[in-house]
Amino acid sequence: MSIVTFLGFVAAALTTGSFAPQAIKTIRTKDTRSISLFMYLLFSTGTLLWLIFGLLSSNMPIVVANAITLVFAIIILMYKIKYRETRETM
Amino acid sequence: MSIVTFLGFVAAALTTGSFAPQAIKTIRTKDTRSISLFMYLLFSTGTLLWLIFGLLSSNMPIVVANAITLVFAIIILMYKIKYRETRETM
Repeated sequence: MSIVTFLGFVAAALTTGSFAPQAIKTIRTKDTRSISLFMYLLFSTGTLLWLIFGLLSSNMPIVVANAITLVFAIIILMYKIKYRETRETM
Repeated sequence: MSIVTFLGFVAAALTTGSFAPQAIKTIRTKDTRSISLFMYLLFSTGTLLWLIFGLLSSNMPIVVANAITLVFAIIILMYKIKYRETRETM
């Protein structure tokens, strides 16, 4: 494996795995006040499209990375929708 | 452009752009309590590595998408570090 390919794997692991601590924190505290609803709506939709893109282009690394990220993003989004304040914006 | 390539562009625009509303919300409210510090440490590092990966492999879409995302991620991270509670975990 080249150093560039290795760098790509590390980058993918970090950006995919980074949503785990946010999901854990959100599940534990049920506090979603400073999290942007609009961010997780756009991000979850984008991750779903990446997943479909990966499936259609038979690119397994894209499929795996985005399937994992989508699970975390949907969890955070569901908590945000359930526990958000009524008059909150964005 | 094929439908699959178009899908990839839409997916990239959504996942990259999704961090803008979070950055705007964070700048406006200075409220970062429910945001995970650990997420943005991992995510910013990962995005920086994606940027380097894109530069080394001369992949301009990866460079552009991750350069934009990195700006938003660093803004959110800086606000989180500046305005976090002392005894906060994760």
